[in-house]
Amino acid sequence: MRSEPAAVTVLGLGSMGTALAGALLKGGHATTVWNRSPHKAKPLAERGATVAATPEEAVAASPLLIACVLDYAALHTVLDPVADSLAGKTLVNLTSGSPEQAAEAAAWARAHGAHYLDGAIMTTPPGVGSPEMMFLYSGERTVFDTHRPVLASLGDPLHLGTDPGLASLYDAALLGLMWAAMTGWLHGTALVGAEGTPATAFTPVAIRWLSAVTGFLTTYAPQVDAGHYPGDDATVDVQIAAIDHLIHAAAARGVDNALPELLKATMERTRAAGHGSSSYASVIETLRKAAGNR
Amino acid sequence: MRSEPAAVTVLGLGSMGTALAGALLKGGHATTVWNRSPHKAKPLAERGATVAATPEEAVAASPLLIACVLDYAALHTVLDPVADSLAGKTLVNLTSGSPEQAAEAAAWARAHGAHYLDGAIMTTPPGVGSPEMMFLYSGERTVFDTHRPVLASLGDPLHLGTDPGLASLYDAALLGLMWAAMTGWLHGTALVGAEGTPATAFTPVAIRWLSAVTGFLTTYAPQVDAGHYPGDDATVDVQIAAIDHLIHAAAARGVDNALPELLKATMERTRAAGHGSSSYASVIETLRKAAGNR
Repeated sequence: MRSEPAAVTVLGLGSMGTALAGALLKGGHATTVWNRSPHKAKPLAERGATVAATPEEAVAASPLLIACVLDYAALHTVLDPVADSLAGKTLVNLTSGSPEQAAEAAAWARAHGAHYLDGAIMTTPPGVGSPEMMFLYSGERTVFDTHRPVLASLGDPLHLGTDPGLASLYDAALLGLMWAAMTGWLHGTALVGAEGTPATAFTPVAIRWLSAVTGFLTTYAPQVDAGHYPGDDATVDVQIAAIDHLIHAAAARGVDNALPELLKATMERTRAAGHGSSSYASVIETLRKAAGNR
Repeated sequence: MRSEPAAVTVLGLGSMGTALAGALLKGGHATTVWNRSPHKAKPLAERGATVAATPEEAVAASPLLIACVLDYAALHTVLDPVADSLAGKTLVNLTSGSPEQAAEAAAWARAHGAHYLDGAIMTTPPGVGSPEMMFLYSGERTVFDTHRPVLASLGDPLHLGTDPGLASLYDAALLGLMWAAMTGWLHGTALVGAEGTPATAFTPVAIRWLSAVTGFLTTYAPQVDAGHYPGDDATVDVQIAAIDHLIHAAAARGVDNALPELLKATMERTRAAGHGSSSYASVIETLRKAAGNR
């Protein structure tokens, strides 16, 4: 399903902003672009984008403004001088930042009569425009619904809630999951690699295994919400026994064990809190009690 | 596709051994079971299993023996007294242990004239029998091929190579990935939970994101094998900047930051080794150099 063409402005043409503008052009939208260094706009102009000479021109060109700049300081440098022309516009802010920065930007936009959505892009620039890639949004639901067709040109738009900080909060949480998973994968890759298994042989097995692990997450999520962690499938005690196999195997092959040792220590704190017979989901109790337990 | 019925013996009826025997019975195989405490065999006998009174009887009953006991000490306690009756049999050892223990058991079996496969079960007992669940095997390829139809009753059998330690090595590597991913997920769940998002709301998004992350692993695996890590999509420098958002957001909400702080320190060591502009795959260089860098 293609959306109705709509006029949209992209502020900021780093590699991500350029990918956003490219996906909007591909979606048939009248796309205006602006960047502090104007030469970045040239390839997009050749693909049909209108190049705005100033932020004023860029804001005036479209009812929908998508900002993707370095940080919130850069956002305010661009938009503060044109704040008075934002009334009635919608600002979709895909700049990376904290939930608190998102909340401040939302209040600032509201004070200038603009609608505001905060967003987080859950892919790299080459993934922009793929319908399976998630774009997370938070803020007024009606604003999201109005602009959903345009946002769908960028990826799969998900509305998380009205609190504007939610997209940034999810972004941080999901990136944390990514770094943990990628580092766990690299640790395993280093371990099997020490015995001559190529990463390209291990990785398809690791990816199938991650798919099984998502089944465990689906089982454990309601346990977290209930605060009750039946250890029917595998207990914290069992995991603590098993992680020693990993630590010994990695140590014997000269692979850094800081990650599994931290994971083991976290499990041991969870056991010490009375969860030896609980499922792994009970580890969240330890993570929540940062001040008390450490 | 159902396999031809074959006679098979299961040694050890803990929750996993019981699940294995149940799946074999379901697959139509003539299944003999033995357990140190015989009462565990009763439910399986009611489903058609033959209960062996002694290890001798159990070994005599079938050409294929599947062992799943507490550890390698327990394995030898059971099998050492009957070692002379193993000639010509195939022992498939699904007991958890180290690659070194697997290699010793393979040599021991060979010395007694038995074929040997080592294996690792990549699911929990309730997942046994599901054709999508991975069972990893290592050892002689022809032995694997001969018994593949029976092993397929337990799950999807994968042969990793002739080195008998490979299944245990992969098992350790994959469990490490699981603990890292599950802990990263619980950390993210605690973070969004601090703002009132239920785990059951966050988890489907996290699972979709993990599917995107597997795309990164597929991109990075050949980089690891080549020892060349082009940072086209996202550099280590970019990840270091981004992880501070997570650390600040989690600290502000009282969530334990030991995991993201370790991940950041690992990234910083990777940058210090000259990989700031490389992809995240370059972190493996840091993990491999345990002794030198820490």
